[in-house]
Amino acid sequence: MAEYKAPLTDMNFLLYQVFNADKMWQQSSQLKDQVDKETAIAILQECAKIAEQEIDPIARQGDEIGVIFTLNEDGVGGQVKTAPGYKEAFDTFAKGGWCALGGDINYGGMGMPKIVSAFMEEMLCSTDISFALYPILTAGAALSLAKHGSEALKQRYLTKLYSGQWSASMCLTEAHAGSDLGIIQTKALPQADGSYHISGSKIFITGGEHDLTENIIHLVLAKLPDAPDGPKGISLFLVPKFNVDDNECLAERNKVSCGSIEEKMGIHASSTCVMNFDGAQGFLIGELNKGLACMFTMMNFERIGVGIQGLSAGERSYQNALEYAKDRRQGKSLTKSSKKSAQPDSIMVHGDVRRMLLSMKAFNEGSRALSCYIAMQLDYATFASGELQKKGEQLSSLMTPLAKAFFTDLGFESAVAGQQVLGGHGYIREWGQEKLVRDARIAQIYEGTNGIQAMDLLMRKVIGSKGDLINVFTKEVSDYIESQQGNQAMTEFVDPLASALADLQDISALLLTKSADDLNEIGAAANDYLHVFGYTAMAFIWAKMAQVSLQHLAQLENANDEQSEYGVNFYQSKLHTARYYFARLLPRRLSLLATIKSGCHTLFAIDDELF
Amino acid sequence: MAEYKAPLTDMNFLLYQVFNADKMWQQSSQLKDQVDKETAIAILQECAKIAEQEIDPIARQGDEIGVIFTLNEDGVGGQVKTAPGYKEAFDTFAKGGWCALGGDINYGGMGMPKIVSAFMEEMLCSTDISFALYPILTAGAALSLAKHGSEALKQRYLTKLYSGQWSASMCLTEAHAGSDLGIIQTKALPQADGSYHISGSKIFITGGEHDLTENIIHLVLAKLPDAPDGPKGISLFLVPKFNVDDNECLAERNKVSCGSIEEKMGIHASSTCVMNFDGAQGFLIGELNKGLACMFTMMNFERIGVGIQGLSAGERSYQNALEYAKDRRQGKSLTKSSKKSAQPDSIMVHGDVRRMLLSMKAFNEGSRALSCYIAMQLDYATFASGELQKKGEQLSSLMTPLAKAFFTDLGFESAVAGQQVLGGHGYIREWGQEKLVRDARIAQIYEGTNGIQAMDLLMRKVIGSKGDLINVFTKEVSDYIESQQGNQAMTEFVDPLASALADLQDISALLLTKSADDLNEIGAAANDYLHVFGYTAMAFIWAKMAQVSLQHLAQLENANDEQSEYGVNFYQSKLHTARYYFARLLPRRLSLLATIKSGCHTLFAIDDELF
Repeated sequence: MAEYKAPLTDMNFLLYQVFNADKMWQQSSQLKDQVDKETAIAILQECAKIAEQEIDPIARQGDEIGVIFTLNEDGVGGQVKTAPGYKEAFDTFAKGGWCALGGDINYGGMGMPKIVSAFMEEMLCSTDISFALYPILTAGAALSLAKHGSEALKQRYLTKLYSGQWSASMCLTEAHAGSDLGIIQTKALPQADGSYHISGSKIFITGGEHDLTENIIHLVLAKLPDAPDGPKGISLFLVPKFNVDDNECLAERNKVSCGSIEEKMGIHASSTCVMNFDGAQGFLIGELNKGLACMFTMMNFERIGVGIQGLSAGERSYQNALEYAKDRRQGKSLTKSSKKSAQPDSIMVHGDVRRMLLSMKAFNEGSRALSCYIAMQLDYATFASGELQKKGEQLSSLMTPLAKAFFTDLGFESAVAGQQVLGGHGYIREWGQEKLVRDARIAQIYEGTNGIQAMDLLMRKVIGSKGDLINVFTKEVSDYIESQQGNQAMTEFVDPLASALADLQDISALLLTKSADDLNEIGAAANDYLHVFGYTAMAFIWAKMAQVSLQHLAQLENANDEQSEYGVNFYQSKLHTARYYFARLLPRRLSLLATIKSGCHTLFAIDDELF
Repeated sequence: MAEYKAPLTDMNFLLYQVFNADKMWQQSSQLKDQVDKETAIAILQECAKIAEQEIDPIARQGDEIGVIFTLNEDGVGGQVKTAPGYKEAFDTFAKGGWCALGGDINYGGMGMPKIVSAFMEEMLCSTDISFALYPILTAGAALSLAKHGSEALKQRYLTKLYSGQWSASMCLTEAHAGSDLGIIQTKALPQADGSYHISGSKIFITGGEHDLTENIIHLVLAKLPDAPDGPKGISLFLVPKFNVDDNECLAERNKVSCGSIEEKMGIHASSTCVMNFDGAQGFLIGELNKGLACMFTMMNFERIGVGIQGLSAGERSYQNALEYAKDRRQGKSLTKSSKKSAQPDSIMVHGDVRRMLLSMKAFNEGSRALSCYIAMQLDYATFASGELQKKGEQLSSLMTPLAKAFFTDLGFESAVAGQQVLGGHGYIREWGQEKLVRDARIAQIYEGTNGIQAMDLLMRKVIGSKGDLINVFTKEVSDYIESQQGNQAMTEFVDPLASALADLQDISALLLTKSADDLNEIGAAANDYLHVFGYTAMAFIWAKMAQVSLQHLAQLENANDEQSEYGVNFYQSKLHTARYYFARLLPRRLSLLATIKSGCHTLFAIDDELF
C-alpha cells in the first residue's frame, strides 16, 4: 500500500480560506485563549506524524492477527489481547495528549473545537479505523460524562480518560434490540449507597475489553424496575471495569465481564465484545430516565465522526489507487499514443480509470469540506451565542445524519472504486485495498444504520420541524447564490446549484404534503431523499471551494498575494475537480428525484408472502 | 445463514413460459435428441440437490480454512491442499456426470445447451463460488479444446475432463500485463517432435494447483520466438501437469509448478496460483498465432458465467436477508401498529428494508431472465442456422460484456444490500452475509474488469459495428413494443420501455457521432453506457415477464389452464416486482444519460499531476 500522506494542505485550505475558522475562534470568548491558527496548524502537523509514523505501520498486522480472546480460568468472562504494536502505539498517542484534544479544560482537556478534532479523527482512521475506535469512543463517552456527570464522577473519571490512562466503551445494543433502544432489558437496581446494581447483557460493544489501558469505563443504558415503558424509561450509568477507591486507585474488579468477541468482515484489530453485567456497581449519569438525552449529547459528535470514517477510507483508497495508476502500464491511450510503440501507457490514459479516480477525489474533498462545515456548525452551537448559536444547533441537528450516512456511503463506494483501479491486485491482500473495503463497510452499519439515519433526517428533522430545519439550510444556499450574482466566473457552478436547490425545495415540500396522507411515503423516500440532500449540499460546498480557488488564482496572477500559499496547481486542481463534480456526480440526484416521485405504492402493494 | 433453496420455479418459468426453450430444442437437429423439457427439469432438480446437500455444507469451512500451500522439499513449486470436504464434494459432483453437462457428445459430453448449464452454474455459485470455479473453468477450457484441438488431443484429454477425473486451468495473465495480452512474455520453443517447450510465469491462475483431481490440464497463452508483435503473435498451448503416455496413463511430471498462492479478500477455498513453466512440454491448440481467437470461443461462455456469479451472490443474499427480515422484530410500522403494543414489528414494515429487498429481488430475477435470454442467443449461434443463427451470434456478441459487467455490479450491490438488511449481524461472520460480499467482489474484477467489458461493449461492439449490433437489439425491442400495442394491461410497462428505448437509441447515435471526433468520448462514456443499456435491456425482459404473468393470471381466472402450474402468487409476485423495477430502478438511467451527455471534457482537462 502507498504510504499515507495526511492531506494537511487541504485541511488548512478549508480551515483558513474557505471557512475562516480562525476568525470564529478569535470571536469566541471560550476558544480565543485555547486555539489560534498557528496552534491548530501545529496540532494537525503533529497528529499527521503520529498517524503516518506510529499507527500506519501496525495496521496490516492488526488486520491479520486481529484481537485474541481467552476465557478466564474461572470461566467467567475473558481477556482480549490486541495485536502487536497496539499497546505501544496507544501509549505514544496517550502520552502525546491526544486523548484530551476535545476534552473539557477544567479536567485536563485541551478544549479544541470539533473542527480540529474531526481532522484528527480523519487522519487516525485513514491509517487504521480499528486503532482509532479506541480513543474515539473514549472521547465520545467523556463528552457525555463531561456534560451530564456529577462533579464527583467527573473528578474521578474524566481526568484519566483524557490522559489515556483509562479508556471507555458505550454499551447500548442488546441482542434482541439493535437500534430499538426502547425495548432494552438491562436492569439497574438502586442501592442504599446511591449507586446501582446493573444486570444484563450487551452486544457489539466496541472496545468493551482489551489490554490497552488499565481500566475501562463503560457507559451503560439500563432501566430501573419501575421505569416507564419505552425510550422514556432509559437511564445512563457509569460502570468501571475496576472500581476506584477514594484515593483514586484501582480497587476490586467490578462484576462486568467480556463473554466473547465477534469474528467480523473487517476492523479485525478492534474488539467487538459481548459484555455481561452481573450486578455490577454503576453510577447514574444525569437524571433518571433521561439516559437517551445524555447519549444524544454525544451522538451528534460521534455520528459525524463515523461519517468521517467513511471519508478516511475513501481518502486512503484514492491515495493508494492513484499511486498504482500512475505506475501501472497497460493498454494504450485511444488518442495520444503512437500505435507502433511496444510500450503500453500508464492506465491514467483510460477514461474509466480517470472516472474512478476523479469520483473518489471529488467525493473525498467534498466530504471533507462538508464535514468541516458541519463540525463548524457544532462549534457554533457549543461556543457561539444568539443567532449564530441557534443556526449552529439547527444545521448540526439537520446535517448530522447526513454526514453519517452520506459520507460512509461515498466512502465505501470510493474504497470499492480504488480496489477496482487495481484490478486483480486490489482483490489480493498484498496491496491493502481489500482491507479498506472490509473496514469501510462497518461505518454504514454501526452507530445507527444508514437507513435509520435517513429516517432521522427526513422523518424527525425535516418533517418533524415542518420543514423549518431544511429551510435554514436552503436559505443559506440561496443567500449564497444571491451573493454570487454578477460573478461571471461562478456562473458555471451557481446555475446548476440553483437548479439543484430548487429541486431540493420542491421535493421537501412534496414530501411534507405527502406525509400528512401516508407516512409510508416518508419511509419509502428517506434513503433517496438523504442522497438528494447530500449531492446538493456537496454542490454548495464545491461551489464555495471553486469560488475561493478562483479568487486565489486571480490574486496569484497578480503575483502579490501572500495568502495564496498553496500555488496555482492546488487551486487549479480544486477548480477542475469542482467542474467534474458538477458535470458527472451532481446529476445522480436526477434518478433519485424520479424514484421519490414514483411514490411508495410499489413498495407496499406487495404482500410479505409474495417476497 | 438461511439454507439455500434453488430457484427452480423461476428457472422453469423462464425456460418454458417466457423463452419457450423446449420449442427451440425440438427444432434443432442437434439438440432434439439430447434434451427436452422433462430431461431438463430432471437435470436441474438433481443439480439443485447437489448444490443444496453437497456443496452448501462445506462452503463456510472452505472460507475459514481456505486453501493451504506447502512448498515441495526440492523447493521447486508446491502443493495446494483444499479445505475439508472439497475433494469428496468434487468426487460426488464428477461421478454425477456434472462436469460433462455442456460437453461434446463425441467425447463423453452431454451436449446440453448453455441455457441449461447456465442454471447449473448459478446454483453452484449460490452455494459456493470457490467450489464452482474448479468445474466451471474446466468446462471453459474443454470448450476451447473441443472447438480447436486436434483429434488426438481431444481423444486424450477431453474425455477425462468431462469425467471429472482431470481438471483444467486457463493461464493468461502475467504480472506486468493484466488484461493487455499483447505484451505477454511466456515463450514457446518448437521441438522436433512437434511439441513445444513453454517457459514463463503466469499469475492469478484459478485452480492452477489443487488436490481435487489427479491431473490438471493448463491452457497457456505463449509466443513463439519469431511471432509477430502484439495480440497477433499469441498461440494457445495445452500443458498437462503430468504428461500422458500412449496408454493414456499418467507419466512423468511436466515442468510446470505452482510457485505460491494469493491471500485474497474472498473465495478463500479457490486456489489462485502463480504458475511457473520451465520448459514444460506443451501442445499447440488451433493454429499458430491464432491463440486469442481460440480463447474467445470460450470467452463468451465464460463471461456470461461470471455474470451469473454476480447473480448467484445476489440471489443468496436475498434469500438470507429475507429470512432475517421476516424474523427480526425492531421498531414499529409508521402506519399500522398500535403504538401501545410493547411488541415491535418485523422489520418488513420499514420502507427502507422493503426497498432493499425488492431491489435485490428485481435485480436477481431480472438478471436471471436476461442471462437466460443471452444464453439462448448463444444457443441459437451454436445450434441454429440462417437468420436465427446470425442474430444469435450478433446478440450474444453484443450482450456478453453486458452480462459480465452488469450482473456482477448488481450482484455486488445486492450482496451489500442484504448485508445492510441484517445490520450489525450482517457484518459479523456468523450469518454468512459478509462472505457473500467478499466472494461477489471478485466477479467485477476477473475475466476482464468491468471497465474493460464496458469498452468491449461500446468501443468494439457498438462503435466497431457502426451501430449495427445495437440496432439488432433495439429492433428486437421495438418489434416487441409494436406487438403489444393494443394490449391495455401492458401499457404501464410498454410506455416507459419505449421511452427508455428511444433514449438508448439517441445516446448510441450521439456516441457514434462523437467517436468520429474524439475517441476519449467513448472511454469516458463506456461504463455509464453499459449501465444505460443494462437497465433498458432489463426493462425489456421485465416487460416480457409481466406480459407472460398477465396471460397466466387471466387464464387462472378462467381456472381451466393446465399450464399455469405455479399458481396466482407466483405471477402476482412477478407483476409487483416488474412494477417496482419500472418505478424505482429503471429511472437510474436518467442520471447516467445526463453524465454521458456532459462529455469527456471534465475527465481529460485535468493534468495527471493535478490528481
